[in-house]
Amino acid sequence: MPTFLSGGTGTPKLLRGLDSVFDPTETTIVANTGDDVELGGLLVCPDLDTVLYERAGELDRGTWWGRDGDTASTHDELRRLSDRLDVGSEPRYLDDTAQVEGREIARWRRFSAIGEFMHIGDLDRAVHVLRTSLIDDGERLTTVTIRLADAFDVTVDVLPMSDDPVASIIHTPAGLQHFQAFWVANRGKPAVDAVDFRGGEEASATPEVLDAIRNRPVIIGPSNPVTSIGPMLELDGFEDALAETTVVAVSPFIEDQVFSGPAAKLMAAVGYSPSTAGVAAAYPFADAFVLDEADSTDLDRPVIRTDTSISTGEDAERVLQASKRALEGV
Amino acid sequence: MPTFLSGGTGTPKLLRGLDSVFDPTETTIVANTGDDVELGGLLVCPDLDTVLYERAGELDRGTWWGRDGDTASTHDELRRLSDRLDVGSEPRYLDDTAQVEGREIARWRRFSAIGEFMHIGDLDRAVHVLRTSLIDDGERLTTVTIRLADAFDVTVDVLPMSDDPVASIIHTPAGLQHFQAFWVANRGKPAVDAVDFRGGEEASATPEVLDAIRNRPVIIGPSNPVTSIGPMLELDGFEDALAETTVVAVSPFIEDQVFSGPAAKLMAAVGYSPSTAGVAAAYPFADAFVLDEADSTDLDRPVIRTDTSISTGEDAERVLQASKRALEGV
Repeated sequence: MPTFLSGGTGTPKLLRGLDSVFDPTETTIVANTGDDVELGGLLVCPDLDTVLYERAGELDRGTWWGRDGDTASTHDELRRLSDRLDVGSEPRYLDDTAQVEGREIARWRRFSAIGEFMHIGDLDRAVHVLRTSLIDDGERLTTVTIRLADAFDVTVDVLPMSDDPVASIIHTPAGLQHFQAFWVANRGKPAVDAVDFRGGEEASATPEVLDAIRNRPVIIGPSNPVTSIGPMLELDGFEDALAETTVVAVSPFIEDQVFSGPAAKLMAAVGYSPSTAGVAAAYPFADAFVLDEADSTDLDRPVIRTDTSISTGEDAERVLQASKRALEGV
Repeated sequence: MPTFLSGGTGTPKLLRGLDSVFDPTETTIVANTGDDVELGGLLVCPDLDTVLYERAGELDRGTWWGRDGDTASTHDELRRLSDRLDVGSEPRYLDDTAQVEGREIARWRRFSAIGEFMHIGDLDRAVHVLRTSLIDDGERLTTVTIRLADAFDVTVDVLPMSDDPVASIIHTPAGLQHFQAFWVANRGKPAVDAVDFRGGEEASATPEVLDAIRNRPVIIGPSNPVTSIGPMLELDGFEDALAETTVVAVSPFIEDQVFSGPAAKLMAAVGYSPSTAGVAAAYPFADAFVLDEADSTDLDRPVIRTDTSISTGEDAERVLQASKRALEGV
């Protein structure tokens, strides 16, 4: 019966153990959409799709994104032709005018498909094509997601955090980079001066998301607090709703060692200690934490400790059981 | 050294024999773009692509469209998901407002990708994705086509008839249908009351096309005079340029029997006899004709007769040799 807040890697890994710890038909997963892009006209929602595919048993668990066994004929041919045309495969983030004209869904997250810097599988692309056309047809991302989850026989409720565009923009010494340009094309290497969530102030959490937070205890998986959970906290009413419900957070750190991803660098850039202590500071609404047994951080809120490394389904179950105990203890 | 005017089937079949009759490096092919569509945001140019793939040795010669050996993972998955979402796979021609907002390239030829009524192969899709993004980037369809032809090592010059949108709209008792809805989704079955080429009056032939017509003799292959060649004749200056150059046309009929496609029905709808005589009436600028040896139509212009059925490369060469003799005789 919990509601999970999820980015694209840490929490999806945790969700792998869901079915043996919680009733999936009573579980909601709210996915970050702050790193979504419009790529050559297709709305690509990496975190939402990782959750969707994980729950459908279709996720490529080698990469933790994309569809298991997918081909990439279109993408590979697009790269081959782009090479032949000598147009490169760097991200082509469109100019300011292009970012705000045309579709509302494109705002500040619009890339050209020339060179297609992100790897898009053939089956994966079908999801982006259908989703985009349904939204162009007037549907909300929320209802499109619910319909897609049904099509994949997914039993949990999967919800995007918002129907409005929010773009995670990374400020680097070399200039602004959309999160996907920073992470996918530049492999998270540039120094980070700051992070902003463009569109976040005008974006709203959906009624479905606020209901799922208010009426159920919330588990924040070992996601990146800045670019996975941060965009959600920008949404009007989101943090207030968390303050009013029971929240348990799994630290993505062991003290100051991060399990994976760009969390440490991003946290330092936004003024938090890159550590479990920093996560606790970033989550003032959290009522309890799940920390690794090797993490002796002294927090001002209840803590359950377990081995929080997650490589297998059993690992995921163990961390979920600890999260459940933490919820029960609050 | 000739310039060919080409639709999507008859003339591409003829082009198969090109290399042994004319010097391909001195040949230009002008392709119809009147049946192009914007499908889910991708600009799809069926006739142009058939010519491009034929010349690249990549055409599927079973269907005479699409790429040889292509897969359709994205398309098939899009259809599967559309079935699961119960959204159907009928053509979804967007409303009048959507037809004229946004990209100029979309005008009156914009379809949703929900259900994706046209079959788009994975490799083929890469061409549409790249072409569309290059045009969004400010390039002309003409230069994009030239670059794509280079990428495919094509030695002839392939040119779209225009950089401007022209939409072939079929008037049926059940209402207006874009040509692709009429032909692909409805298999050419509806009765046809009239045909119009929306956007044709404002569209221009490109300087490249007018040069290719004015400076070289023109061969019109056995294409459909209404929806393959008709859109070209709508373009400002196109028919005048044809009147000033040497033009040979291959009839797609044997007297009143058409080889294939919807030419007969369409010609009747626009007021021409569905026959070789009707083709001659539709092409007042033609200086000579190539007719089948079984076609005894009496025309007011010179005629070369041969077996005009084209199933093999040898057939194509024979008809091209006859076209060459016709050009030489003018």
